[in-house]
Amino acid sequence: MAQKPSIPKGTRDFSPLEMARRNYIFDTIKKGFALFGFKQIETPAMENLSTLMGKYGEEGDKLLFKILNSGDFLKSCSDEELTARVLPKLTNKLCEKGLRYDLTVPFARFVVQHRNELQLPFKRYQIQPVWRADRPQKGRYREFYQCDADVVGSDSLNNEIELLSLIDTVFSNLGINVAIKLNNRKILAGIAEVIGHSDRIVDITVAIDKIDKIGIENVNAELREKGLDEAAIEALRPLLTLSGSNEEKVETLSKMLAASETGMKGVEELKEVLTGIDALGHNCDVDVDVSLARGLNYYTGTIIEVKAKDVEIGSITGGGRYDNLTGVFGMPGLSGVGISFGADRIYDVMNQLNLYPESVTQAVKVMFANFGKNEALQSLKYIKALREAGISAELYPDTAKMKKQMSYADSEKIPFVAIVGESELEEGTIMLKNMVEGSQDKLTIEQMIEKLK
Amino acid sequence: MAQKPSIPKGTRDFSPLEMARRNYIFDTIKKGFALFGFKQIETPAMENLSTLMGKYGEEGDKLLFKILNSGDFLKSCSDEELTARVLPKLTNKLCEKGLRYDLTVPFARFVVQHRNELQLPFKRYQIQPVWRADRPQKGRYREFYQCDADVVGSDSLNNEIELLSLIDTVFSNLGINVAIKLNNRKILAGIAEVIGHSDRIVDITVAIDKIDKIGIENVNAELREKGLDEAAIEALRPLLTLSGSNEEKVETLSKMLAASETGMKGVEELKEVLTGIDALGHNCDVDVDVSLARGLNYYTGTIIEVKAKDVEIGSITGGGRYDNLTGVFGMPGLSGVGISFGADRIYDVMNQLNLYPESVTQAVKVMFANFGKNEALQSLKYIKALREAGISAELYPDTAKMKKQMSYADSEKIPFVAIVGESELEEGTIMLKNMVEGSQDKLTIEQMIEKLK
Repeated sequence: MAQKPSIPKGTRDFSPLEMARRNYIFDTIKKGFALFGFKQIETPAMENLSTLMGKYGEEGDKLLFKILNSGDFLKSCSDEELTARVLPKLTNKLCEKGLRYDLTVPFARFVVQHRNELQLPFKRYQIQPVWRADRPQKGRYREFYQCDADVVGSDSLNNEIELLSLIDTVFSNLGINVAIKLNNRKILAGIAEVIGHSDRIVDITVAIDKIDKIGIENVNAELREKGLDEAAIEALRPLLTLSGSNEEKVETLSKMLAASETGMKGVEELKEVLTGIDALGHNCDVDVDVSLARGLNYYTGTIIEVKAKDVEIGSITGGGRYDNLTGVFGMPGLSGVGISFGADRIYDVMNQLNLYPESVTQAVKVMFANFGKNEALQSLKYIKALREAGISAELYPDTAKMKKQMSYADSEKIPFVAIVGESELEEGTIMLKNMVEGSQDKLTIEQMIEKLK
Repeated sequence: MAQKPSIPKGTRDFSPLEMARRNYIFDTIKKGFALFGFKQIETPAMENLSTLMGKYGEEGDKLLFKILNSGDFLKSCSDEELTARVLPKLTNKLCEKGLRYDLTVPFARFVVQHRNELQLPFKRYQIQPVWRADRPQKGRYREFYQCDADVVGSDSLNNEIELLSLIDTVFSNLGINVAIKLNNRKILAGIAEVIGHSDRIVDITVAIDKIDKIGIENVNAELREKGLDEAAIEALRPLLTLSGSNEEKVETLSKMLAASETGMKGVEELKEVLTGIDALGHNCDVDVDVSLARGLNYYTGTIIEVKAKDVEIGSITGGGRYDNLTGVFGMPGLSGVGISFGADRIYDVMNQLNLYPESVTQAVKVMFANFGKNEALQSLKYIKALREAGISAELYPDTAKMKKQMSYADSEKIPFVAIVGESELEEGTIMLKNMVEGSQDKLTIEQMIEKLK
């Protein structure tokens, strides 16, 4: 019992200071979602395993946290089944529920389950933790938050323009310099088509995706290995080295993809989205990037990724358009587009660059020192008046030595300490110490409220 | 696959309207916590089972949701152990982690684990879901939120006064009429002592607790059954029928418990708390109630319970003082006092009495109808300006029939619809329809911002 307790690996406690900072990020994102007309939903932490299994690939199934059935969890397992130790089969018998792995599958389940109550287009946001039994490492946790916004039931590219504008708003408000990277799945399909390898779109995009890391010659070597002929590799070269302004890139793509209907559709979509976001104006960089291939098996149109410019940390937000969110639950043909803010990485970026305003603090505005029963009771009355004026305040609860009380105020970074001793009690005044400047004033409660407001 | 998906029994989805209402409650509670100087922490959903097991009694152990170990979960079980089917032993081998059952044990674990970083007294609040494998029924869920505030490391009754004041503030702000019931464990101990049955405090308080439900004669019958003699039962009678003002009750208790040192200490504490809260003033009723015996095995001093006066629903907030929060984790002697707001029951009360202000809504302030590409792009520019002024706004994304667009605005209860058609586009104006009054105005964007602010 006396062993120091701990928490499961890959999980975290958050201290008051950490919470104040995280709340600042979540509140900024939430404010953005609400301004843009997204509406919040929440889903349970536990979903039926039948909802979750098979949605994240074989690897994903293994990374789901599964909940042991209550009561006699062995009741549907025979001795033979137990000793045969076929784990996936036993898992199904021991567990009916699992913890959600992301917010997308629960959202799809929500849309199908509540289809008759929902008005389309449905703009939802959801900010909740997810759990993955991944190997924990720096910046990767087994419990972390996702902040998703999606529009389902509308094909319009106005949704893409709005989501880009939302990303621009949130990161501008947080003060993080970011580059928003834009691509379109149809452009990737068009590229595969025009170089004569439509069937190899995955190999090609996986290779293209590595160009920043391994360089063009290594990418080409990989493509050769995958069986691409030299003509195709040569045809790809201008794409791998695509440069210039967005307009120039779009121009080059238009020429290259002229022979592919799908590819040209992708270029048209990209152009419309760029025209929209440029007409609105944006603080963040917006860059066309054909090497962007995230979520390829999933996205069908626009692909979005956001990177911080001042910290090396990978993508801090991503998203795109998908054509069949709910098909797997028996409701086909529902198109949507969404983005997900990576709150934990954004938190790491904010910490590293120290981007929090000074007002982000866990401290109360003023602590009343405690000089004894009568003084404390009078202090509580003053404190009540301060709170009614919206000013946070607290009484040091015990009549401890002044040094101890002041050291508490100091370590908690409380900016003001109020003193109601014997003489102040008689006079009906308060001695207010400014802990930052070291100054002090004798005030009435009305003056104090005025000063701290 | 085409089967309509569902969620585990006892869990809930929350729709946008439900979220708006729940957020109003959580925000009101949070605002209270912050005004009173409580600081937020969060702990992981999963705790080690060694942290959770044995803390909630044998029944509680069974109600913990346990997480199946990742990888080869059978690796430490022999065939013999598996087929022997000794469930508690197997549970320990199959599962290392469980979902938190309340916020108190994780808080105790947090305090011990972070003892060197914490400044005492430590005033923490925590608002997170908890999970219990209870049989679901009306008003009882398997996933629900707790909202706890505790002060640890201070014996002062000022903390009790502050917590009562906090309860008064939160329920006044929510507009719920409540009665705060107050008792003290030491008074219950004193009662058992003076009637000559110190060892029977649990039996006595369990019986007293039922007086409202079964009446005094049935309570007495129960006490007789438990082996209390007639003298003791007669001595208890004035307590079971204690009435009058708080002062009168305290007076009666003082006389009855004069022979018990513990009992008199309890009366003194109760008096000091009453004096404090009365001096500060309160909107809610505060009633001494010696039949209040919640958490008897846990609380050592003040006991607090809050009931809604206008809805039959049981306790909606409770708390008390405990002397040994962290002893079980090897850190003895840390005293504390805390309260827990029952958010889900408060939600039920608010719904039943329809106590939400009109401003609690999930809707955006204004929707721009969509008349085509050029009109939509101009609308997006206006929308950007509105958002920059803090006004939530959205574009109907598709160029759908006007009837469909208006019906969306209607069903989403959006109070204003803005129309930028061909003529407005030419004039640089916006036709703003008030959906509640049915009126409409032709405005510039500056006039529109002014009007909606």
